[in-house]
Amino acid sequence: MSEKVFRDPVHSLMRFDTEEERIVLDLIETRELQRLKYIKQLGVSYVVYPGAVHTRFSHSLATAYLMKRVIERFKLKGYKVILTCAALLHDIGHLPFSHLLEEFTKEGHEVRTAAIITDKKSEVREVLKSYDPSYPNQIRQILERTFKPSFAVKLISSQLDVDRMDYLLRDSFYTGVGYGNFDLDWLIHSLRVVEVDGDWEVAVDLHKGVRAAEGYVLARYYMYRQVYHHKRGRAAGAMIKKILQRAGDLLKEGHQIFVIGPLKRLLMNSHLSFEDFLSLDDVVLSFAIRQWERSKDPILADLCLRFNRGKIFEVIDLGDPDPEILEKVKKAALSHGLDPLYYVELDRAADNPYIDDYLVYDDKKKKKMKAGENIFLSDGKNLIELSSHSELIGAIRNRTFVTDRLCFPGEIKGDVAKFLA
Amino acid sequence: MSEKVFRDPVHSLMRFDTEEERIVLDLIETRELQRLKYIKQLGVSYVVYPGAVHTRFSHSLATAYLMKRVIERFKLKGYKVILTCAALLHDIGHLPFSHLLEEFTKEGHEVRTAAIITDKKSEVREVLKSYDPSYPNQIRQILERTFKPSFAVKLISSQLDVDRMDYLLRDSFYTGVGYGNFDLDWLIHSLRVVEVDGDWEVAVDLHKGVRAAEGYVLARYYMYRQVYHHKRGRAAGAMIKKILQRAGDLLKEGHQIFVIGPLKRLLMNSHLSFEDFLSLDDVVLSFAIRQWERSKDPILADLCLRFNRGKIFEVIDLGDPDPEILEKVKKAALSHGLDPLYYVELDRAADNPYIDDYLVYDDKKKKKMKAGENIFLSDGKNLIELSSHSELIGAIRNRTFVTDRLCFPGEIKGDVAKFLA
Amino acid sequence: MSEKVFRDPVHSLMRFDTEEERIVLDLIETRELQRLKYIKQLGVSYVVYPGAVHTRFSHSLATAYLMKRVIERFKLKGYKVILTCAALLHDIGHLPFSHLLEEFTKEGHEVRTAAIITDKKSEVREVLKSYDPSYPNQIRQILERTFKPSFAVKLISSQLDVDRMDYLLRDSFYTGVGYGNFDLDWLIHSLRVVEVDGDWEVAVDLHKGVRAAEGYVLARYYMYRQVYHHKRGRAAGAMIKKILQRAGDLLKEGHQIFVIGPLKRLLMNSHLSFEDFLSLDDVVLSFAIRQWERSKDPILADLCLRFNRGKIFEVIDLGDPDPEILEKVKKAALSHGLDPLYYVELDRAADNPYIDDYLVYDDKKKKKMKAGENIFLSDGKNLIELSSHSELIGAIRNRTFVTDRLCFPGEIKGDVAKFLA
Amino acid sequence: MSEKVFRDPVHSLMRFDTEEERIVLDLIETRELQRLKYIKQLGVSYVVYPGAVHTRFSHSLATAYLMKRVIERFKLKGYKVILTCAALLHDIGHLPFSHLLEEFTKEGHEVRTAAIITDKKSEVREVLKSYDPSYPNQIRQILERTFKPSFAVKLISSQLDVDRMDYLLRDSFYTGVGYGNFDLDWLIHSLRVVEVDGDWEVAVDLHKGVRAAEGYVLARYYMYRQVYHHKRGRAAGAMIKKILQRAGDLLKEGHQIFVIGPLKRLLMNSHLSFEDFLSLDDVVLSFAIRQWERSKDPILADLCLRFNRGKIFEVIDLGDPDPEILEKVKKAALSHGLDPLYYVELDRAADNPYIDDYLVYDDKKKKKMKAGENIFLSDGKNLIELSSHSELIGAIRNRTFVTDRLCFPGEIKGDVAKFLA
Repeated sequence: MSEKVFRDPVHSLMRFDTEEERIVLDLIETRELQRLKYIKQLGVSYVVYPGAVHTRFSHSLATAYLMKRVIERFKLKGYKVILTCAALLHDIGHLPFSHLLEEFTKEGHEVRTAAIITDKKSEVREVLKSYDPSYPNQIRQILERTFKPSFAVKLISSQLDVDRMDYLLRDSFYTGVGYGNFDLDWLIHSLRVVEVDGDWEVAVDLHKGVRAAEGYVLARYYMYRQVYHHKRGRAAGAMIKKILQRAGDLLKEGHQIFVIGPLKRLLMNSHLSFEDFLSLDDVVLSFAIRQWERSKDPILADLCLRFNRGKIFEVIDLGDPDPEILEKVKKAALSHGLDPLYYVELDRAADNPYIDDYLVYDDKKKKKMKAGENIFLSDGKNLIELSSHSELIGAIRNRTFVTDRLCFPGEIKGDVAKFLA
Repeated sequence: MSEKVFRDPVHSLMRFDTEEERIVLDLIETRELQRLKYIKQLGVSYVVYPGAVHTRFSHSLATAYLMKRVIERFKLKGYKVILTCAALLHDIGHLPFSHLLEEFTKEGHEVRTAAIITDKKSEVREVLKSYDPSYPNQIRQILERTFKPSFAVKLISSQLDVDRMDYLLRDSFYTGVGYGNFDLDWLIHSLRVVEVDGDWEVAVDLHKGVRAAEGYVLARYYMYRQVYHHKRGRAAGAMIKKILQRAGDLLKEGHQIFVIGPLKRLLMNSHLSFEDFLSLDDVVLSFAIRQWERSKDPILADLCLRFNRGKIFEVIDLGDPDPEILEKVKKAALSHGLDPLYYVELDRAADNPYIDDYLVYDDKKKKKMKAGENIFLSDGKNLIELSSHSELIGAIRNRTFVTDRLCFPGEIKGDVAKFLA
Repeated sequence: MSEKVFRDPVHSLMRFDTEEERIVLDLIETRELQRLKYIKQLGVSYVVYPGAVHTRFSHSLATAYLMKRVIERFKLKGYKVILTCAALLHDIGHLPFSHLLEEFTKEGHEVRTAAIITDKKSEVREVLKSYDPSYPNQIRQILERTFKPSFAVKLISSQLDVDRMDYLLRDSFYTGVGYGNFDLDWLIHSLRVVEVDGDWEVAVDLHKGVRAAEGYVLARYYMYRQVYHHKRGRAAGAMIKKILQRAGDLLKEGHQIFVIGPLKRLLMNSHLSFEDFLSLDDVVLSFAIRQWERSKDPILADLCLRFNRGKIFEVIDLGDPDPEILEKVKKAALSHGLDPLYYVELDRAADNPYIDDYLVYDDKKKKKMKAGENIFLSDGKNLIELSSHSELIGAIRNRTFVTDRLCFPGEIKGDVAKFLA
Repeated sequence: MSEKVFRDPVHSLMRFDTEEERIVLDLIETRELQRLKYIKQLGVSYVVYPGAVHTRFSHSLATAYLMKRVIERFKLKGYKVILTCAALLHDIGHLPFSHLLEEFTKEGHEVRTAAIITDKKSEVREVLKSYDPSYPNQIRQILERTFKPSFAVKLISSQLDVDRMDYLLRDSFYTGVGYGNFDLDWLIHSLRVVEVDGDWEVAVDLHKGVRAAEGYVLARYYMYRQVYHHKRGRAAGAMIKKILQRAGDLLKEGHQIFVIGPLKRLLMNSHLSFEDFLSLDDVVLSFAIRQWERSKDPILADLCLRFNRGKIFEVIDLGDPDPEILEKVKKAALSHGLDPLYYVELDRAADNPYIDDYLVYDDKKKKKMKAGENIFLSDGKNLIELSSHSELIGAIRNRTFVTDRLCFPGEIKGDVAKFLA
């Protein structure tokens, strides 16, 4: 056992040094957690924000730390251990390069996270079981959102969860933008757990915390519009997509390219074993993209070379995505000898900054169910839904902000400028 | 051409948006600079400080930015372009994993940096030449410390240089420790360029800046003792060293292991071509260490597995490095079936926090020369060497702080505890 | 002449050290500016936020510094001196205790500020004239909003001015709340001066700066709702109002209380001479309130004692200001022997976070005119009004947020609770 | 009862919201604590650092808060209440204008603080007694350094106390300098309470905390040399001293000047009653200095006018305080019609940054005793004195840093320059 206290640029000292918290340290030493040291939180965003190379590992530690702080505030200490563990583990199902690879697996990271918790091969399950045989199932239920009381689920995964609290601050900090800041200390100070219909719900104190809650929702809104959906960041993502698409197509057509087994299976949409999944991280992907620079396939080689040398695709915003423009751009690519299938991408970035009704997967009923992820304000007696009380949140409630863009190589920029003139 | 303004968590906005600064943007797009996106500034220190995964790329941008700020202060604008370029390029000769790999090349990164600037294959040289044919040579001279006037050399590489100003703040910021902070704005405000014997020297205003200069030297002292020489960070470095040593030995003995050409040549101490050098970065090293987990060689596989899973060697401080203890620990390793050559490391971390006399390589005379890296205070007339004026700096002047440690696997910790009891 | 570089907790070093900026240093030494060292920026808010005791002096320096930064960005250097001076001087017409005393003078601080600039007795006018005889008039015009081109006026006083940029950050910093933060560096980076109908207008770059502009408007919105209109801060203000009202009434009725001439004239709504005005600051007011603790008038003495000992009035929010409640509370006060005229205050705090049409006083036409204080976005060709483009700002556009509250002494809290039950 | 949670710019939220902490809220409401809202922590330093107008009130709250954090870490909860109260109350014996007024009372603030705790007229004593009759005496003993176990005394008042921890950070924060920063979280994390000879002593963990302890001592060293002993800050202090000296001399000679009773008694070195003491704060002093601008005494009026208008005395550093120079400067003053007694001040600023032996007043034995204020490091078994282990602290151990300066009006600057040439 090594450290019990972690230095963190965002939260200063994060301690897990009581007897009760030994389980946290044991989980940190598992293979599933250590793997997150090699997966960047923001995928390829470092192309835009050179400082933003932080990992899911430090985010996971911090999420556990925030959960611990929240729970200690509530004096609901019976839930402290499982909630802290659930917070620590909430991201272990992630593939590298953020959400880009999920297109190949057709499976969300939440599903994989839940599966790993109870997978017989997982070290995480071993550790949890060694403390209490019921832990793996309990934590799986929390992560699958079927656990009761509800406050436990919502603190991990809702519009008001510790995951988001940390990632907004962390991504803001590492990118160097100011948008993701909100008043964390005051928000935690204003949180309440209140009884509703025999269940326990999380809420924010109406009198103390409404501005902090608003600030937090707006921080998320800004981070999406400014950072997560940044033009060049999306273009970099589009390039990764095209590279993997080309590699997959080559493999499916029987061509030889440098590839390790798990990545091959991913690109060919085959089943990923537990072992396969654990092997996939930024190192493996980045190394392949490095090797493919020298692939015999000119398209794959060219795309990788561009990406590795920082020659990111150009981007234009399409007010309305006019199908004619797409066709024209494709033709322009062709006329430069570039296959539009791999060189032109129509990218749609969409975000719902605040919605008052969610659908979630119910494990028992095997279907998606309404889960009510609303943020509630409490005046001590009643719950008031945030967007009904706040003009600002009301203005973005249930809205989807969509940005359609075209990404293409720099050499056809002149042609594109002409179409749009 | 893409961004002209970079967000940075340490310095906020870093702009290179004047006509004169276009050369900086062009250099950033070169292969040699882009490569630094894939080399972490602090090598394996992320094992101790999960947040410290920042890259040499962001440090290089920031060093250029600080140089620009310093030069603009002096109104020595004739030197602005070459000094900003030199600052940007000062780290392009680095191998991955900090200084650990230099043991295989027997060549310092400064030598390689200088060589790249004028290498006919380098994109950097092309860019520099396209602005002014004399730039490559001038910048090489600055980086080799033979340029005159001296202030130019010293701002890039001395005990009072912009490189250090940025890395102390940056490493402090990303690790989350407070030790590397000093008063950057005030230090820059207190810098002077003064004439001495027909040369131009950098100094700190005696009346305004002596405390800022002290604070800066002490910040460095602390970062070495607390961060760069951190126990577990050194142990992680020792593991990498052992892994590479084992891989090298296997290759020299003709065994087959997964390895790409450039890495093979590195590990076999062969000559690295320009191309080889550029191929080596964290991705390549980390991928090899990942693959070697499944090597047929049990030692290599075991060491890599330990490292990748975060099972870092244990460490003990040796007050005086008693040779008997080393022998005992080696025997203990052997008795656990572990080859001491690859499982026991005597690690010496040494630092000179402030010295008043340096030796540097003189390119023309082909030998090391005294270069006088002292920090000077100026009272407007005379130069006063810092340690002669400051009690605190006097206390650490020309001292070498050495820590000797033993690193070994956790399973023999019990045995080692017995020897030391 | 003393300092040319000021340390500031918010903006680090603020330098005024060029030849051109000597006028700033000379103005700082005037009596009118020095007086602002003794007027707290946030009046009695220190009752709620013990750290918020910063002065209008440091805010004024910082406003000048921000103006300098903005102007240097635009390369409109012809305006640099007068705009920096105008920024420095924009608050010299303030009375102590924020806006509470303006009720006695029936005159806004903007009017007094403008008058001082050209008052023959003012040192400020002397300094300005000594640099350029036209400066006093030019700067007066800027501060009165009649100067052309318009961008100069708007940078000093509009919904997008440097005054506000500094006070939001400063008040946020000193209170310790997070609400007033916005992305200052980026906002300044995104500012543009654009030509419109032969005039020059300030705008924010549509593509780069819309989120920074939104963030800035929202920062203001939050500071009003959370800090400037804080419950107990308003109650403390109400107490000061009552104290001054009682003192004024006593004076008008011919009673003797401790009072210096200028304060007496203020409280009796007499004309304040230039000298009178300059004598009034926090020290004078606070000293009177201290002395009045021992006044023979029991009401004045009691109110002052309460205030000085931190026994601030209780407050309740009135959803709808029901006149019956007010009457009941007054009766309750009476039943405790407290004169409702001086012990019960109906307080209305109102704010318009963003309006797209302002009325301003036109000096020549002697009437209020529309001045168009809208924040504009520029896409390089057209100007787009912010609230028409931003959902969030649209949601608060032209809205007035009103909070009605009752303030009363703690001893009748129980009675009030009963009425409201 | 009002707030239980205080916003603080330095420590974010400071909560005193448990049942046990109600005593803290009651003490905050006493007259003795409320008075500290009107005493600036750094006296006249705002003349140099316009942002540094923070009060002893916010420092006192924060000292209590840090004590609470430290005690909670130790699990010595039996001492939590009295130590938190002692921390809160440690500064209530301060006069305004920092230490300048103690020259008139010939009595240190520590003595007055202790006396107030048990004074029958004090509200503080009433509150303490209402919780536990033994509290006033216990807390007085802590503040007089006679309490056992010793760790309690040392946490309040030693070279490693919470008072200093807060004021270094706070003064650094509000002045905007970087010097006072140290690693607070880590230092608190490294604190230990260890048994020595049947007593309990505070120490810092040798392995974890030695650099944090060094950093803390150096932060203090820097704050003295850079901020507390700042040239112009000392000159401003010298002016206040001269003003009060002149006012005192006038009063002693029977002249009439504006003065309230308590201030008069202070200036005439008469006994100050409890009531007198409580009346003296920044408001009273500043008001007098404002009124004296119009005194019939030309010296008093002139000095006050200079101070209020920011015309601070000029200062020169005397390497060795040459008595001849002093005489010459006095003559120069005289030749300008300025009485040297009130216009020339020889100022000596002295500081011992780290001493390993203190004398303290022992209440029982009625004499000063060695108290051993050394900072100790603990390796779990033995205590090691800091300066014996640390080269840096060794370099300043038991040293006194003295700066002698001459302060005089600007009009004789030219003459002085000639003497020194």
